[in-house]
Amino acid sequence: MNNSVKRAHNFNAGPAALPLAVLKKAQAELLDFNDTGMSIMEHSHRGNAYEIVHNRAIELLKELLSIPEGYEVLFLQGGASLQFSMVPMNFLPANKKAGYVMTGVWSEKAYAEAEKLGEVFVAATAKEGNYCQIPALKEINYDADTAYLHVTSNNTIYGTEWHAFPNTEAVPLIADMSSDILSCPIDVSKFALIYAGAQKNIGPSGVTVVIIRRDFLEQAKKNGPTMLQYATFAKNNSLYNTPPTFGIYMMKLVLEWMKAEGGLLGIYKRNQEKAALIYDTIDASNGFYKGHAQLSARSLMNVTFRLADENLEKKFLEQAKQAGFVGLNGHRLVGGCRASIYNAVPYDSCQALRDYMLAFQKENS
Amino acid sequence: MNNSVKRAHNFNAGPAALPLAVLKKAQAELLDFNDTGMSIMEHSHRGNAYEIVHNRAIELLKELLSIPEGYEVLFLQGGASLQFSMVPMNFLPANKKAGYVMTGVWSEKAYAEAEKLGEVFVAATAKEGNYCQIPALKEINYDADTAYLHVTSNNTIYGTEWHAFPNTEAVPLIADMSSDILSCPIDVSKFALIYAGAQKNIGPSGVTVVIIRRDFLEQAKKNGPTMLQYATFAKNNSLYNTPPTFGIYMMKLVLEWMKAEGGLLGIYKRNQEKAALIYDTIDASNGFYKGHAQLSARSLMNVTFRLADENLEKKFLEQAKQAGFVGLNGHRLVGGCRASIYNAVPYDSCQALRDYMLAFQKENS
Ligand SMILES: Cc1ncc(COP(=O)(O)O)c(C=O)c1O
Ligand SMILES: Cc1ncc(COP(=O)(O)O)c(C=O)c1O
Ligand SMILES: [Mg+2]
Ligand SMILES: [Mg+2]
Ligand SMILES: [Mg+2]
Ligand SMILES: [Mg+2]
Repeated sequence: MNNSVKRAHNFNAGPAALPLAVLKKAQAELLDFNDTGMSIMEHSHRGNAYEIVHNRAIELLKELLSIPEGYEVLFLQGGASLQFSMVPMNFLPANKKAGYVMTGVWSEKAYAEAEKLGEVFVAATAKEGNYCQIPALKEINYDADTAYLHVTSNNTIYGTEWHAFPNTEAVPLIADMSSDILSCPIDVSKFALIYAGAQKNIGPSGVTVVIIRRDFLEQAKKNGPTMLQYATFAKNNSLYNTPPTFGIYMMKLVLEWMKAEGGLLGIYKRNQEKAALIYDTIDASNGFYKGHAQLSARSLMNVTFRLADENLEKKFLEQAKQAGFVGLNGHRLVGGCRASIYNAVPYDSCQALRDYMLAFQKENS
Repeated sequence: MNNSVKRAHNFNAGPAALPLAVLKKAQAELLDFNDTGMSIMEHSHRGNAYEIVHNRAIELLKELLSIPEGYEVLFLQGGASLQFSMVPMNFLPANKKAGYVMTGVWSEKAYAEAEKLGEVFVAATAKEGNYCQIPALKEINYDADTAYLHVTSNNTIYGTEWHAFPNTEAVPLIADMSSDILSCPIDVSKFALIYAGAQKNIGPSGVTVVIIRRDFLEQAKKNGPTMLQYATFAKNNSLYNTPPTFGIYMMKLVLEWMKAEGGLLGIYKRNQEKAALIYDTIDASNGFYKGHAQLSARSLMNVTFRLADENLEKKFLEQAKQAGFVGLNGHRLVGGCRASIYNAVPYDSCQALRDYMLAFQKENS
């Protein structure tokens, strides 16, 4: 570790902080990957050097997430936003309806895209109270012949997260896990399809990870554009056309780093400690800081909070910026403050934020 | 220049060689972009540091290609292959037909995707003779109410290239320029839409550049999925959702390098010199090397050639590999050899290949 590297306290919501060790490794081999005389970016996606990276990234995802047999891991492009359309293009037939659980803006966007392509319904909503909670599992309503049930596992903007998922039995469960994939253990076998933009917990932007159950994939519509069928990616090991090779290479480095950090359980434990630093500060502030999310729905990844009024928030954010904190402004739809503390955000940065919050409260109460 | 960097002679068809100076710059600032204490990959796509990069890349593309007023430059994902579908999704209405000029496998794939979505016809084809030529402009047949005419400006696999484009008048001309964009000057005003995967001449894989005439864009269908409408990207400066920020950053560095190398004219001149080294060797070989493309259709970017028989080709390719040449195998559909000599392939590498070809001929005739 070269301690002279200048590092900001990066709380960006995505693209977000990457592990310093990963950046250093990428830097060291940027000109010459594995003694090939070429950058990994200059390698053919059909060549051996890249293929090893590609397959290792898939393998590591399977290992870290304990993905059971019978699932495919795919690498796509277009961000999670393109998944909002690809899901119904592949899995919403004319004679069925798809159910959406509304837990924030990303659920709304997913719903709006599906609505363009077929019949949809709201299976439950947490809109009342500005999405500060997650609907109780028993309040989610859908028929047994629902095409699929769609949930957003972590609501990046509101700072809420599902801590248990419904057992949907024969109804395929689909989850947008863009902002909490790989942050804590999940039971992948509950899901027919999981998708996530890489740019929060897994790597740089430009790669979308899809985990799909093979028997579900077989039910997909087969007449759509080649590049918008999951089957195209499954059949060709995500190499039908040129994948975003550098992004996948970075993912592989991040996944290796995760493994070295104790795997998903090690990361989860540290994430809990990091989150506790900030949530405890909020809870002990006698209302100086007010969390947006209800306690039971708090996100491990995005901590959202407000101060007494907008002037005080402005001062808090301005001084934080001057002190070297990046990305603490809340999303314009919620206002206030948000600290995104993804896997790669160091414990130190969370400690520094806690200290800043304590000092700011002292000076301003 | 640190001359100790090991560099392969990289003739990959894409992803392909990048300028060494660009890789060095990316390496130098990989951990700390502009003294922000963050990698460019860790910056928010909504933040100032990234936005400057993004807008500068657009500006440089406009400048280098002399893009006239009235055009938008967009950054998409999904590769050129997704464009095969997006073009008809946006611009093939139910009451019109789209014309395709078939000059290779990529034209065929573009046609096949459009056929799924509407009515298409072959306006001309060079299939006879295994795509060794480009149809004469006067042989291209289409009505005045054709939805659009689609061409593939450079045929990566066959090594043929259009050296003049038709004046299609009111019929919108659309070109897949994936493998020759920015290699030579073009008159952008002839085109309604140009698209190109970045991974040959502009940067790493994972970014698709689209250049679109605004009045054409206004005719696009408006009911499609948000992420599959060009208008979404145009309205939001390609920031509707998270763009592949690192790829766009790399593109900006490549475009700055091009500018420093004399802009498009400087690059074009060097490309001609590079291509001449190899084509002249083929032509002076008394038939030892046989070019695939007809003289009038030769590509400046992909030089395709064969040797007397497959055994000799095998020997040529094996010894080339041992000598440090990368990517000289022809595409399986044409066989033989292919040297992709995109903008970033140094003159030195072409000289080395020429020398190798001369020596191999001497030893084997
Ligand atoms: C939960 C969630 N879903 C979807 C998206 C959209 O992702 P992308 O920008 O990759 O399309 C985001 C982006 O922040 C998100 O947080
Ligand atoms: C002319 C041309 N068009 C399209 C493609 C497909 O590009 P992508 O892999 O980005 O989808 C290629 C790839 O080599 C190409 O050369
Ligand atoms: Mg949501
Ligand atoms: Mg949200
Ligand atoms: Mg072609
Ligand atoms: Mg071709």
